[in-house]
Amino acid sequence: MSANNNIQQLRQLMKQHEIAAYIIPSADFHESEMVGDYFQARAFITGFTGSNGTLVVTQDEACLWTDGRYFVQAELELADSEIHLMRMGEEGTPKITEYLTEKLGSGDNIGFDGRTIPMQQGLTFQKIAHDKGARVITDFDLVDVIWQDRPAMPKANVWIFDETYAGESAESKLSRVRAEMQTLDAEMHLITTLDDITWLLNIRGGDIQYNPFVLAYLCIWMDRAELYIDERKLSDEVCEYLSSFGVQLKPYDQVYQDLQDMECASILLDAERVNFRIYHMIPHTEHIIKATNPAILMKSKKNQVEMENTRLAHIKDGVALTKFIYWLKSHSDRTSVTERSAAIYLEQLRAEQEGFIEQSFAPIMAFAEHGAIVHYSSTEATDVPLLGNSFFLVDTGGQYLEGTTDVTRTIVLGEVSEEMKSHFTLVATSMLNLSDVKFLKGCTGNNIDYVARAKFWKRGLDYKHGTGHGVGQLGSVHEPPSRIAWQSSVVSPAFEEGMIVSNEPGLYLAGSYGIRIENLIMARNSVETAYGQFMEFETLTLAPIDLDAILVEEMTGEEKHLLNQYHARVYHTLSSYLTEDEQAWLQEYTREI
Amino acid sequence: MSANNNIQQLRQLMKQHEIAAYIIPSADFHESEMVGDYFQARAFITGFTGSNGTLVVTQDEACLWTDGRYFVQAELELADSEIHLMRMGEEGTPKITEYLTEKLGSGDNIGFDGRTIPMQQGLTFQKIAHDKGARVITDFDLVDVIWQDRPAMPKANVWIFDETYAGESAESKLSRVRAEMQTLDAEMHLITTLDDITWLLNIRGGDIQYNPFVLAYLCIWMDRAELYIDERKLSDEVCEYLSSFGVQLKPYDQVYQDLQDMECASILLDAERVNFRIYHMIPHTEHIIKATNPAILMKSKKNQVEMENTRLAHIKDGVALTKFIYWLKSHSDRTSVTERSAAIYLEQLRAEQEGFIEQSFAPIMAFAEHGAIVHYSSTEATDVPLLGNSFFLVDTGGQYLEGTTDVTRTIVLGEVSEEMKSHFTLVATSMLNLSDVKFLKGCTGNNIDYVARAKFWKRGLDYKHGTGHGVGQLGSVHEPPSRIAWQSSVVSPAFEEGMIVSNEPGLYLAGSYGIRIENLIMARNSVETAYGQFMEFETLTLAPIDLDAILVEEMTGEEKHLLNQYHARVYHTLSSYLTEDEQAWLQEYTREI
Repeated sequence: MSANNNIQQLRQLMKQHEIAAYIIPSADFHESEMVGDYFQARAFITGFTGSNGTLVVTQDEACLWTDGRYFVQAELELADSEIHLMRMGEEGTPKITEYLTEKLGSGDNIGFDGRTIPMQQGLTFQKIAHDKGARVITDFDLVDVIWQDRPAMPKANVWIFDETYAGESAESKLSRVRAEMQTLDAEMHLITTLDDITWLLNIRGGDIQYNPFVLAYLCIWMDRAELYIDERKLSDEVCEYLSSFGVQLKPYDQVYQDLQDMECASILLDAERVNFRIYHMIPHTEHIIKATNPAILMKSKKNQVEMENTRLAHIKDGVALTKFIYWLKSHSDRTSVTERSAAIYLEQLRAEQEGFIEQSFAPIMAFAEHGAIVHYSSTEATDVPLLGNSFFLVDTGGQYLEGTTDVTRTIVLGEVSEEMKSHFTLVATSMLNLSDVKFLKGCTGNNIDYVARAKFWKRGLDYKHGTGHGVGQLGSVHEPPSRIAWQSSVVSPAFEEGMIVSNEPGLYLAGSYGIRIENLIMARNSVETAYGQFMEFETLTLAPIDLDAILVEEMTGEEKHLLNQYHARVYHTLSSYLTEDEQAWLQEYTREI
Repeated sequence: MSANNNIQQLRQLMKQHEIAAYIIPSADFHESEMVGDYFQARAFITGFTGSNGTLVVTQDEACLWTDGRYFVQAELELADSEIHLMRMGEEGTPKITEYLTEKLGSGDNIGFDGRTIPMQQGLTFQKIAHDKGARVITDFDLVDVIWQDRPAMPKANVWIFDETYAGESAESKLSRVRAEMQTLDAEMHLITTLDDITWLLNIRGGDIQYNPFVLAYLCIWMDRAELYIDERKLSDEVCEYLSSFGVQLKPYDQVYQDLQDMECASILLDAERVNFRIYHMIPHTEHIIKATNPAILMKSKKNQVEMENTRLAHIKDGVALTKFIYWLKSHSDRTSVTERSAAIYLEQLRAEQEGFIEQSFAPIMAFAEHGAIVHYSSTEATDVPLLGNSFFLVDTGGQYLEGTTDVTRTIVLGEVSEEMKSHFTLVATSMLNLSDVKFLKGCTGNNIDYVARAKFWKRGLDYKHGTGHGVGQLGSVHEPPSRIAWQSSVVSPAFEEGMIVSNEPGLYLAGSYGIRIENLIMARNSVETAYGQFMEFETLTLAPIDLDAILVEEMTGEEKHLLNQYHARVYHTLSSYLTEDEQAWLQEYTREI
């Protein structure tokens, strides 16, 4: 079915429902970062397969908003359709809200599936409609009517994430959340974010690729909790487990009806993390207490068991990645090795590690100029063999029973120029310098981001992405709230013991190459002095940094020391898991400089 | 008159006015940092002379809140009175609002002179009163009734700050403010802060020591401005000057009555920078547009003339301070030199410079253990001769026609230990490292504060004050909004060309010594690359950093380079203004290390 055809059908349905503009985002019902096949409504209608895109259809126009990563791809995929590409971030491109304000006339209703639009955004659309004497119509998933062979909702089994891995019982976690609810005077706390629900209940599932989550909603009361979930995913054991600490099961879809019928004097919910229909169904919105889900901060502070486990996960991951780098660097003929085949091989090496579950995100394997595309994803069309002299940027990670990894190494293939080495040395030393910071408790990622950028900025260089994001524990590889970024618009909390963040400076020369080196680091208390509690980072990631592109003469004594110390630790920790050949190679590649 | 006697009289007056609690802060009517003798109501009543303190009197209690700087002094000065000292920041000490909430009963009115309490704080007191079914009574200055020999209101002459110094006409400044008013849809803009008024009108006065300001209120309309001021301070020339760009004169006190009678659809005012009575007098508070005074950001960005002038002011100031250091260091017998006599001598040296007007703040001259008291002020009781081996911390500044200076040097007298030198080297190199940062436009003081603290924090050390504050141009030595501090509670704006901030790390060992080294630095645009506009700091302050306490072996190559470069500039710029002896000495004290 062509995009134009789909849009024509949509317009018919819109007329029936008196909808002047219908909005289709790329979203599930849970504000998830990654969404499964069932939720690819926008891709189905438009044919545009990029991960980010929002379609707005009116009777005489159809526009798709996407960001700079996807302009080229969207142009190709939308070529045969009537859809206008709206280039986000480019001058002259209106925001969706501006477009709607401009485009719609008096009495024109705005429609969307209320489950796919975040509450705050929905309220903005509602205001636009109200200002035009119209309303939002949010009860209909019009795409579902058109989408004949829509994939089924995912049905992966739910499993118990044992306390020996979680380090704290679900009961204990719930009681901590209930204490926060009491402080906030909340009778009930509604959670719809899947990372929070699975963390709280110590369960995992497989409903979303790369994220071991399960589609569900959770209402926490003082004396019980109600889990809205497709019961077919639950074994008897899991049902018993959940019931053992007062979790009652209800059908997944029923949450909306229940909210409408509910008697509740005060509902705690996170306006950034529930969808618009949730809000819409609550009869007395004055009963809503808007606050951040307490689970978010709790989850980010890994406990002792999680800390010990993630160290193990990082050893396993380091072994796999080091074997991969050895294989690649010692491959005399790379004619048959491509970005995509290398990705498959690295996934195999990870899969050989006990406790490996899946990759933690779609691997970024970017050779030469592809490395300069920050969110590059190698496709059949762009895949290339790793031939010639350049950098190969490998940004991958794994989900293990013991934790979540995310690591980037930029690997020298062949000979690279002195300038390339200088850039590589800049990135590597900046990463090492940030890992080495000592700071007073209370500092945020906003205070220390400068350390990673100092050497870039002295040279008039920069990278246009944050330096670090929070990382979950067999959870999301991008986990709020921890961040390392300098912009004051990015709110980041003070570091606390057990918070894991990435440390990933990079340099990207469009058309030439990209360099990024990323370790995960974990905040730890260090000394307490008369001046206060000091903190530092423990580096979790273990994998060699390619000495073939290191210019020793461009490093300070301290930087050399940091690299040597790190490499000694890499060799010491990983070598016993390697073959003799790999060992010998690693010894050479972690040599003192 | 004793404090107890004053408080008894106050209680009589409170009864007459049905006031259950009366609040007396240390404030003028303009949210000024420093206040003149007329406004020392709290000091008059209590006998406590510290710069920060708030007295709350009820029928059965009198409590004085002050901060850690003044605990010892307050204990002494309050010893013979019934006043309880409330130690701010100590555990168990309630805030004034908490105290009032706890202490007052139903129907108990809160009283204060509405002109001495900021609007936001007044609203908080009002809420406390309302919650008790009572009200705030703010029309009476009860202290005035008791204070028989109250000093007169200041009457210093106003003078025109010529455009050759200001770099921009008052007309031009007013038109920029009016443009902002239009953006904010404000019919009138009320300004009560003296630094903003004097900057806007290109006038200066002498109503407040250290700050060349004049007591006034200003109402800016689109077609005129009304200046509420004691006309006796104005010569005919100044009156004509003001009238030439539409400024009409009104009696100082009349502003409150005029506000009450005023027809105005929208008043722009800064809720942090007007007093409660101002707010109270505006009949239709729904007409208030709360926003930061536009002049604050404008004023902080020094124009080309101001930049050029402040460089001159800093040369003059550097000459005076260098002469002072030479005199001190080459003084073989320091028996007759005390903290206070040294302060007088340094002021004399500054006064010899053309264009010198006054000191920019009360000099901090702190020998040995006095240096560890961050806001030490040498009094007759504490003054000591500079005998023995230790550090002498000298934090002083001047107001010149060409600009405002603020500089700290810590001077070695005699021989100091290796540990003291190590601490000195830490402070000096941290100051130099921060001066050398390069950063992308958009960065704030929050992003770069770490640079000054990095070496402290690696050693488990810290200083419990901000690293930098904004500085005015023949204005306030502490001028908002620029700041360098890491705490996220301290909001600081992005640096822009011409903003001047101090750079003053320090280390304080209670009972032993204090070290602080402070230069003023000015934000400048540097290169613009594909990655954006970069910025850097130009160091304004010129004075030697005492090499007698520098441990070369604890400095990196880069730090040595920075110090040598700075010292070469100091010698090169200042030497021609010095005597031959001073020159020879400075050459030695700015030698390459």
